[in-house]
Amino acid sequence: MQVDLNSDLGEGFGAYAITDDAALLDIVSSANLACGLHAGDPEIMARVFALAKAKGVSVGAHPGFPDLWGFGRRRIPFSTGEIERLVAYQVGAALGLAAYAGHRVAYVKAHGALSNMAEESAEIAAAIARAVKAVDGSLPILAGPLGAQAEATRAAGLTPIAEIFADRAYTEAGLLVPRGQPGAVITDPDEASARVVAMVKAGAIITASGTPLPTEIGSICVHGDSAHAVETARRVRRRLEDEGISIVPFA
Amino acid sequence: MQVDLNSDLGEGFGAYAITDDAALLDIVSSANLACGLHAGDPEIMARVFALAKAKGVSVGAHPGFPDLWGFGRRRIPFSTGEIERLVAYQVGAALGLAAYAGHRVAYVKAHGALSNMAEESAEIAAAIARAVKAVDGSLPILAGPLGAQAEATRAAGLTPIAEIFADRAYTEAGLLVPRGQPGAVITDPDEASARVVAMVKAGAIITASGTPLPTEIGSICVHGDSAHAVETARRVRRRLEDEGISIVPFA
Amino acid sequence: MQVDLNSDLGEGFGAYAITDDAALLDIVSSANLACGLHAGDPEIMARVFALAKAKGVSVGAHPGFPDLWGFGRRRIPFSTGEIERLVAYQVGAALGLAAYAGHRVAYVKAHGALSNMAEESAEIAAAIARAVKAVDGSLPILAGPLGAQAEATRAAGLTPIAEIFADRAYTEAGLLVPRGQPGAVITDPDEASARVVAMVKAGAIITASGTPLPTEIGSICVHGDSAHAVETARRVRRRLEDEGISIVPFA
Amino acid sequence: MQVDLNSDLGEGFGAYAITDDAALLDIVSSANLACGLHAGDPEIMARVFALAKAKGVSVGAHPGFPDLWGFGRRRIPFSTGEIERLVAYQVGAALGLAAYAGHRVAYVKAHGALSNMAEESAEIAAAIARAVKAVDGSLPILAGPLGAQAEATRAAGLTPIAEIFADRAYTEAGLLVPRGQPGAVITDPDEASARVVAMVKAGAIITASGTPLPTEIGSICVHGDSAHAVETARRVRRRLEDEGISIVPFA
Repeated sequence: MQVDLNSDLGEGFGAYAITDDAALLDIVSSANLACGLHAGDPEIMARVFALAKAKGVSVGAHPGFPDLWGFGRRRIPFSTGEIERLVAYQVGAALGLAAYAGHRVAYVKAHGALSNMAEESAEIAAAIARAVKAVDGSLPILAGPLGAQAEATRAAGLTPIAEIFADRAYTEAGLLVPRGQPGAVITDPDEASARVVAMVKAGAIITASGTPLPTEIGSICVHGDSAHAVETARRVRRRLEDEGISIVPFA
Repeated sequence: MQVDLNSDLGEGFGAYAITDDAALLDIVSSANLACGLHAGDPEIMARVFALAKAKGVSVGAHPGFPDLWGFGRRRIPFSTGEIERLVAYQVGAALGLAAYAGHRVAYVKAHGALSNMAEESAEIAAAIARAVKAVDGSLPILAGPLGAQAEATRAAGLTPIAEIFADRAYTEAGLLVPRGQPGAVITDPDEASARVVAMVKAGAIITASGTPLPTEIGSICVHGDSAHAVETARRVRRRLEDEGISIVPFA
Repeated sequence: MQVDLNSDLGEGFGAYAITDDAALLDIVSSANLACGLHAGDPEIMARVFALAKAKGVSVGAHPGFPDLWGFGRRRIPFSTGEIERLVAYQVGAALGLAAYAGHRVAYVKAHGALSNMAEESAEIAAAIARAVKAVDGSLPILAGPLGAQAEATRAAGLTPIAEIFADRAYTEAGLLVPRGQPGAVITDPDEASARVVAMVKAGAIITASGTPLPTEIGSICVHGDSAHAVETARRVRRRLEDEGISIVPFA
Repeated sequence: MQVDLNSDLGEGFGAYAITDDAALLDIVSSANLACGLHAGDPEIMARVFALAKAKGVSVGAHPGFPDLWGFGRRRIPFSTGEIERLVAYQVGAALGLAAYAGHRVAYVKAHGALSNMAEESAEIAAAIARAVKAVDGSLPILAGPLGAQAEATRAAGLTPIAEIFADRAYTEAGLLVPRGQPGAVITDPDEASARVVAMVKAGAIITASGTPLPTEIGSICVHGDSAHAVETARRVRRRLEDEGISIVPFA
């Protein structure tokens, strides 16, 4: 048995850092790399591509809204056309730095508010898929198994990879319990890693009430920007390996 | 006989415009497209690629310094490594939008202060060439025939394309008379177009004193952001065609 | 009889220009000056303050969202607290450059999406009023007579100045007909200037159906960024003066 | 005996943080607050002003170059006129947020490359002084006692406050040993705090060779953005207090 472990990283900007990229690249098998508009810059991108290559980590372009101040978390009313161009720009920039660093872009995953909006809106999900398809139709899109993106990705003829979150509770519909609601975020690394093991072994999202919703699980997301990010990621990986589940890039 | 005619365009940002892109794309055979850091944005880039494709105009990535306020004209002390990553990022972004628009990136030309510094410095010229080679080694670099870029481009195994300026005077060494010196800029469209015809027919840069310096001439640059840009470009094209010289993309 | 004539200006950025500031400052009595976040920069601000002083034009701070790419026209979901700080920052910056140029900030007017949201939302209107009061409680706020801002401004103990638009149609409730609806924007300078004269003489907003809604009219806004902005502004001023109505700053 | 202790803080941006503002505000008596162009944003500025007020800490505007990516550390060739406007803008913005938070701007200190260039260039130092004088001539300027700023500040009729660095070695001329040279930066908190005590008691800068250069010492700067910043600041303060020297804002 095997599964992919992904994390957002490269989310600094100039003198600023949020994610401990070097530590995370020792743990995850896939790195979602910010592309310079909500976070990231060419220096960081080149560094992450080079380090990821050296460690055998797969890198995905992680496009977001052009909103450095809001870290891509503000819902800005871009049109679907604008979203297409924003995604094409960022995936292209990632391709440029991947080539520069001798590595490659293996997939695309939307960031922050763009991702949240795409999970809810078939139109926005389709816009992202169109942009990815235009730039490189061989790239899979990493997204939730039960949101709008998986379907739009398949409809566009691209490959969706189903991702579950280690540290987030799920509604009975299989969507994330919104941040701010009680129990939405699981902060205890032990609980987060136990949940992941249970879900991977069950081949199902386990909802807040304990109901299993069968789904493919292509990748597990561990957040890179929280206080105990590295420790949680390490714990999740160890627990999976203890159960005989190898951590291997999906792409 | 044939020659290429190029102009910087796509130099707006959001609600701002400087260049009359639609008019210029009816005149030039090659368009140097700003890539979002000193000017340009994904909307403008997609629009220019689409329009250029429809009109049979070749498009080059036109990377500059990340300095929107300074329009890429301030000499910012980036290291050669930083310049490599800046160029790789921008060429990649252009590749992304070219693919999105169904066109292609045909060459690279440095913008503003980056270009001026590269013409003077073998190290900076080599950094640009390394970045282009890493991202797509088949792309030629458009630059002056007698500055540092042509040599660094050749040394990197890439193809330099020699460019002359329609509206700038040349020193006896074949370099541009610095702006600010008397006669540096030729504002009369008739004079500019007459000079171009003379240089193309002579196969030489003609210096301020009238001395011809033999050189290949792969392309003629007409500025896109001056008051009479479109009129000058049109005049240059017509005069060349009147002399039986066709305007054809070099790439 | 007298009235104020205002226009948004200083809306360039670096090499970019949108408004013909020098021409508009010969026509209007009040200039709404962009403060660097949605448009404008310290160079432009200092230039406008100096020129406005020389021409006896009153200058107001014109704060907007930090969205240069969107020109402050995108509705970004800032909290009311964030809006307070955004307004305080921009009014302060304007005070700094006013002092530098030897002129003064005479009022505040919200820009673009911030203005639209404030006209609709009592909370956002109150946030703007709180920020202005904290920075300088003597500054009036320029806003529509029948939207949320006039009321919130009065409630905060500040002075609202009622503004009507020369080139926009009004609903029967006295609000602007949304752009995009037929007849929303009046593009004919003659029609725009005739309307202004009629409204000022009637002391009323005249709705699309011709119904007068009595209101104070403290200022008339002429847009600075449209194609015929300068010509329309000039026509409006001349027509008002022909009727014996002087153009005088309200502040 | 008493002296001021200052630190740069508020140097985050949106989701990014560099300085531990809350911890530093418990230690220093003066806080140099970034104004949004090289670091800082309206949220951070309002927070620092409010917290500083609650803790009795004096706040100075800390203007820098508009270069968030370079954190204000790149030497960008702005003209002296542009520097004047950049400083006026940022001091004004700080005044706006000080008023909003119910605190005040007590002084100005240039940041990063702007500071380095001002210490070396009488023209740039004079430009900063002119801008500060225009915006609020009562504000002192914090700068090295032996560089160009102290003199230019006095010449402009403003008050310079002499600052020494806790963790930097001095040349025999009383200037900072450039970073990168051996011994330029003192990383041991004990050594740094011992040096500070020695210099304050001697009323002199003590050079690398041990020579005392008598000077007023109005303030001691402890860096806020290094790994052990808070610990070093705390140690410096404790050692000074152990010697009976109180930490009191100069302004």
